Parts: sequence; structure tokens; C-alpha cells
Amino acid sequence: MVTAIILINVQRQKVNQIAEQLADMEQITEVFSVSGQYDLIAIARVPRNDDLAEVVTRHLLTIDGLEKTNTLLAFKAYSRHDLEAMFSV
Amino acid sequence: MVTAIILINVQRQKVNQIAEQLADMEQITEVFSVSGQYDLIAIARVPRNDDLAEVVTRHLLTIDGLEKTNTLLAFKAYSRHDLEAMFSV
Amino acid sequence: MVTAIILINVQRQKVNQIAEQLADMEQITEVFSVSGQYDLIAIARVPRNDDLAEVVTRHLLTIDGLEKTNTLLAFKAYSRHDLEAMFSV
Amino acid sequence: MVTAIILINVQRQKVNQIAEQLADMEQITEVFSVSGQYDLIAIARVPRNDDLAEVVTRHLLTIDGLEKTNTLLAFKAYSRHDLEAMFSV
Amino acid sequence: MVTAIILINVQRQKVNQIAEQLADMEQITEVFSVSGQYDLIAIARVPRNDDLAEVVTRHLLTIDGLEKTNTLLAFKAYSRHDLEAMFSV
Amino acid sequence: MVTAIILINVQRQKVNQIAEQLADMEQITEVFSVSGQYDLIAIARVPRNDDLAEVVTRHLLTIDGLEKTNTLLAFKAYSRHDLEAMFSV
Amino acid sequence: MVTAIILINVQRQKVNQIAEQLADMEQITEVFSVSGQYDLIAIARVPRNDDLAEVVTRHLLTIDGLEKTNTLLAFKAYSRHDLEAMFSV
Amino acid sequence: MVTAIILINVQRQKVNQIAEQLADMEQITEVFSVSGQYDLIAIARVPRNDDLAEVVTRHLLTIDGLEKTNTLLAFKAYSRHDLEAMFSV
Amino acid sequence: MVTAIILINVQRQKVNQIAEQLADMEQITEVFSVSGQYDLIAIARVPRNDDLAEVVTRHLLTIDGLEKTNTLLAFKAYSRHDLEAMFSV
Amino acid sequence: MVTAIILINVQRQKVNQIAEQLADMEQITEVFSVSGQYDLIAIARVPRNDDLAEVVTRHLLTIDGLEKTNTLLAFKAYSRHDLEAMFSV
Repeated sequence: MVTAIILINVQRQKVNQIAEQLADMEQITEVFSVSGQYDLIAIARVPRNDDLAEVVTRHLLTIDGLEKTNTLLAFKAYSRHDLEAMFSV
Repeated sequence: MVTAIILINVQRQKVNQIAEQLADMEQITEVFSVSGQYDLIAIARVPRNDDLAEVVTRHLLTIDGLEKTNTLLAFKAYSRHDLEAMFSV
Repeated sequence: MVTAIILINVQRQKVNQIAEQLADMEQITEVFSVSGQYDLIAIARVPRNDDLAEVVTRHLLTIDGLEKTNTLLAFKAYSRHDLEAMFSV
Repeated sequence: MVTAIILINVQRQKVNQIAEQLADMEQITEVFSVSGQYDLIAIARVPRNDDLAEVVTRHLLTIDGLEKTNTLLAFKAYSRHDLEAMFSV
Repeated sequence: MVTAIILINVQRQKVNQIAEQLADMEQITEVFSVSGQYDLIAIARVPRNDDLAEVVTRHLLTIDGLEKTNTLLAFKAYSRHDLEAMFSV
Repeated sequence: MVTAIILINVQRQKVNQIAEQLADMEQITEVFSVSGQYDLIAIARVPRNDDLAEVVTRHLLTIDGLEKTNTLLAFKAYSRHDLEAMFSV
Repeated sequence: MVTAIILINVQRQKVNQIAEQLADMEQITEVFSVSGQYDLIAIARVPRNDDLAEVVTRHLLTIDGLEKTNTLLAFKAYSRHDLEAMFSV
Repeated sequence: MVTAIILINVQRQKVNQIAEQLADMEQITEVFSVSGQYDLIAIARVPRNDDLAEVVTRHLLTIDGLEKTNTLLAFKAYSRHDLEAMFSV
Repeated sequence: MVTAIILINVQRQKVNQIAEQLADMEQITEVFSVSGQYDLIAIARVPRNDDLAEVVTRHLLTIDGLEKTNTLLAFKAYSRHDLEAMFSV
Repeated sequence: MVTAIILINVQRQKVNQIAEQLADMEQITEVFSVSGQYDLIAIARVPRNDDLAEVVTRHLLTIDGLEKTNTLLAFKAYSRHDLEAMFSV
């Protein structure tokens, strides 16, 4: 499973609307509206890098009001939970 | 459930060691070593704000080699998954 | 009581107008126009996180001329004063 | 009453200790440990500018572990509360 | 006497025009067009904080082409000159 | 008369001591301890550029505890006051 | 062979389109859409500096939607591969 | 093939030495000493994400004098050349 | 001779056009289009400070497409060449 | 002729000493101590890129007290003067 944490800035008025659009995407398992200098944080969990590329360089581009994204690829996940099973990608 | 995403910079040699220490903490459900300008991202899920305060202003301080943390409180979570049940906090 | 300090940048001409709009909001106890690189600082004091989420991701979005917000959640308050009683939230 | 909001970064291990030291200072009415890129936010309320100068250029200098301060002078306060009476400076 | 140094960025074409407008303001004793990352630096000398608030949150807002201001309150002045007499505020 | 505004950061404990050292320098007419992201602002007024060079690249270097300086040359001064006479350089 | 790595930010919707335009340029051997704070990274390999100047100050200017470029000249290449032969410039 | 571009800052005296160490690593196909705000740029080409994780979170940590790395994952490569064959990973 | 190095950012399409306009100015002896985060670097060599002020606060303002300038005054020049004679200002 | 403008930060006490060391280097034609956020600016003029690489990745490394360099390669020079002849490289 390939995981990426996407730090997102959006047009302020569209925070909730964009969060819901992102959460509807099959590749995105969680979206949080957050305090601090970012507006949203999305967690993508996909089978392969190419799927992640699709999310970042195609799907995200179609979302109106999304101003800036900074995608952080997870090299390795550390957890007591079986994330792969939980999010059964 | 109170969720926070913690962006972390550490002394480079201690990336893996610190990731494991964080993942062992009861309040932290996932830790990722990541690409980009941060070294680690930890996701804390706790019952109340005070628990989050304990994590950030007490537990994290005890971890040697941890240089900078930027805690982003999740105002709202958007997900197809029942995160509260999955991470049964 | 959940407290947050919100660092705010606004369209210059609307400093006073926005400060008054914010101070009228039930969840905001104090607003200051300030020197330095921010324009306004608002202090929100609310019963629960969800109320804070409402302020940041709904009410603030309706304020015209508000350009950038950076919300800092207070983990813990230290004071000789009984803030909870004083601001009776 | 002269009010200033002081954005503070400290040596991580000393967050709680410094917060308590600051809260004990007569001129400081509230101190918060906060999320985001600052560690502490202190609110100073004093009779005159000179008192604020004393806080920033003398008292704060004596606090060990305090790394960076950015003092924002409040030009004007907007509040439903009578802050001057509440904090009777 | 309350003194503040205001670091100013303006629309490039209006550097001279805005410098003259600022210098005409009773509360501003000197304005300099400067090298480096700021365009203008104004020195305000006023009797009380409220007067400074008037300058920053009212008068400066009326100046067209003024893009960004960063007001630094002078806590204390050090000089061989009797600045208070010289600028007889 | 050549004027320069020097934005200065110093070791925190030495703010007052360095301000006095600077104010004693013949070429420096005023020094202010200030709020915001700088610690001190000094105003140098000298006959020629070479004198300014002496201040920045020789005298300032001898001051212990001075960490960072950013010298802004004043291209032009705008003032109702006769600064040249007042500071009789 | 003169090599340069060009860090590029583009209008989000045009990531793929611009990547293809760049890859079609004779002087550009590889283009990558990337994670992190840049959108694209292009590697130019040309015979002489003047060719590089042509790329950066003429060809790139004709590409619509390209917002910011930061060209890093390679002083020296270190590789087990014979890059000069492989990319036969 | 998974490709990543790694932006690297090192202790100045060790630029050449570290460049050679990196180029000797099987996963790194090219290293460039570069102009601008970075010191070195390395291009890693590996079969799978896990190999990239090994490079960034294990091998790079062993290199003395390496101060900061910012790894940009290549989502997609655009090139007239058959990079996969050329670098036969 | 007063020398200043001016770091310039311009609208991308006008790099060459603006470079030529600047090079035609009597006070500017050299202009370079450059790699890195600036677009152009101009070197002004003039008899007196006032001439430099004219360049920065008047002539440069007339150049369409010039977005940002950061003027660095040269305190002292060090060279084997007799720059004053070579550029006979 | 390959020209590069090198923006340099040094240990404050060594500004003059380092400027003279740089000016003694055959490849460096001018060095200026400057106002603003940089300490020195050096102009290198050499026959080929490799010579520039030697300057940046070898000679500069030997200079004690030099903290940070940002080398900007000149793509093209615009001047009424015959720089190539004047600096006869």
C-alpha cells in the first residue's frame, strides 16, 4: 500500500465543500480541516505509485478552489494497527 | 475523538528510532517517515483536548533528538470509514 | 473551556470593520488590532472543539475581507485569574 | 491599559516551566501553550508603555530557555467584556 | 513620547508620492525611501498609544497604493540628542 | 548627509547593553529597542558613504553579542523638520 | 556538456500539458512531475552555456501557464554512467 | 522504476566528498554539485518505494556532513529517451 | 564612485526586453540575466548617492513589467582592476 | 567568458578579511561589501564552466568564515562596455 499525506491550501470559502469532494474520492481515506497554516490534510492510500500520480496530477486538478498542494510520500508506516487491513486497499 | 496531525523534524540519524518511540505511545495511532521538508508525520487520536496537551507538552518533550513539532488540530474529519470505531479511542 | 488564539491578516481598509464583526461573535471574547506582521488577533473561548470548528470553518468564512487565518489551539492556560469564570463560557 | 500579545519560542523541554514563570509575572495575565509554529503565547496588560518595555527588555531576558519573542502591541481592543475592569491594571 | 518605526511596501510607481503624503501627516516626523526589501520607512512620534493606533488603523488605510505595513513600537529610545525636545510632540 | 536605518538582532540578554554601546557611537543618532521580529533599530547619519561603510564593516563588528544586521540606505528623506541641521552632521 | 536542473511551478491545471511541451524541447532530456513544493523538475543537457541561456530566457518564456522557474547550473556531474554518451548532446 | 530527485545541503567543505559517496550508491544514478540555494542534487532510480525508503531513511543517514535533504518523488517521467532501459534498474 | 547591485524580478516574458532597457540607462554599467531565484542583476555605478536615488526611485519605476527590486549599496569595492577608471563615472 | 554573481554570507568579524581573500583570487574580478541581507557580493569571470566549478566547489571551500554562498550563473550580459576586453579573461 502506498500512503501519502497531502497538505492543502484552498480558497477559504470552500473549505468544507472541498473536504467533502476529496473524501468522496476512492483513493482518499481521510480528510481533516485543520488549525495552523494549512487548511486541509488528506491521506491517500493506494496500491501503487501510479495511482498516487493519478490523484495528484489528474484528480486534484479538477477540484475548483484548490490553491496549493504539497504531497508528502510516506516511505514507511509505523503503527500498532494493521493499516493495510483496516483500509483494505 | 480529538485528532491532531503533528509535523515533525528530527535529528537525521534518529528518524527510525523516534518513529518507533512515537508509534509505541498509546495516543499515537500512526507515524510515517515522509518525503519533503518534514521528517515524520504522526497522527494522534485521543478522547479530549487535555490528552492532546499531555502528548504535545509532556510526552513529546521526553523524546531525545526531536527538534521541531508543528501540531495541527483537526477541526473536523471527513471519511467513508468509521474512524472512531476503527481506532476505538 | 477550549481557547484558541487566531492570527489574522485582512484587507487593510477593513481592519476596524472586521475587528468589530469578530468581537460581535459570541465565541470571540477579545479582538486586538496589533503591530507587526499580523493585522488582528482574536481570542476564541468555547465549550467544545466542535464549537471552535464552527468558528474557523464556518463563521470566519462569512467575513468579507478576511485574507488569512492561522488558528493556534491553546493546549493549556496558565493564569492567576479564573479565566473560565471571568469569561463564563 | 496597554496590552501586548507576545509570541514565544522556547527550548522544548522547558515549555511548562517557562509558562509558569511567565504567569507568575505581575504584568502577564494569561499564558497559553499552543499548537502551531509558536510554543507559548503570553498576554501582557500594563498601565503604560514603559512597563511593557520593562517586561520585554528586562524581565523576559532573565528567563532561561526562552529562545525567541515577537511582541505585538495591541493598538485597540474590541470586546463585549470590560477587560480593563476584569484585569484591573 | 511614543515612537514607532513603520516598515512599508508600496506599489512601485507611487514611492515618492506616498512618501510625501506620509511626511505631511502631523504624527510622522521622517520618511525615508530605502534600499533593501522595504520601500519606505516612516518614523511616527506621538503623545500616546491611541494616537499611534489612529495612525496605523485609520490614517494609513486612507493612503492609496500602500500595500503592506509592519509597525515596530519603540520600547525605549537611546540617544545623545534630546529627541523629545527636538521633535516637540 | 547620508542616512541609514539598521535593523538589528542581538543575543537577547544584551539588548540594553548593545543599545547603549550603539548610541555612544558618534555616527549613530538614535537607537530604539523595538517590538516585532527585530530587537534594535539604529539610525546612522554620516557625511559620506565611506563613513557608513566604516560603521557597518568595522565598528559594528567590534560589538559583542550583535548577531545580524540589515542596513537600509536612505535614498531620500522627506520631513517637515530640517534633519540636517537638527543632527548637524 | 552543460547540465541544469530547473525547478518549476506551473498553473495547477496545466501540469501534464506543460510537462509534455518541455519534454518535446530538444534541450530537455527529462521532465518529472514531483511531490513537494515544486510541480515539475526538468533536466536540460546542452553543448554550451549560450544554449542554456536560450532555453531559460527564450524558450521557457513561450510556455503558457509556467509561473516560476529556478535554474540550478550543474557545476560537476558524478555518475557511474557515461551521461555524455547516453544523452549524446 | 521509482525515481526521486533529492535536494541536498551539506557542510560546505564536504561537497565533493559527499557527491562521490552518493554516486557510489547503487540506487543513485547521478549527482550534481549545483549553483543556487542547494549544494547537491541526487537522482535515485529504484525498483520499488521500499528501496527509496531505504535510501532516504537509512543509507543517507550514514553519510557524515549531510545537513538537510528534501526528497521529491517523481509521479511521472516525460522523456524522448527510454530512461528505464538506459538506467536498467 | 557609488556602486549598487540591484537584484530584480520581472514578468517572465519581458526578461530580455527589460535587460536591454536597463543596459541603455547611463547609470547602469552591466545587466545579467541569471539562474536562481532572481531574474536580472544590474550594477549601477554613479557619482553620488542622489544619483542612485534617482535610478531606484524614479527611472526604475518607469520600466513596465519590473516586479520587485532589492538594491544593495556597495560599502566598499575590492578589486585588482581600477574600476573607477574602467567605468570612468 | 562565463560570469557568475555570488551572494555571500560570512562570519561578521571577517567581512573585510574575506573580501580581500576573494579579490586576490584570479577568477574573481570584483568583491563588494554590501547593505541588505547579504554581506558580500563577488563577481567571477572565467573562460569555461569548469573554472566556475573550481571556484565554487573547491577554492571557496578553503576560505575560513564563509558561511553561505548562492551562485547565480549569468546567462547573458547586457552592457555598453566591452566587458570581455575590460576583464580580458
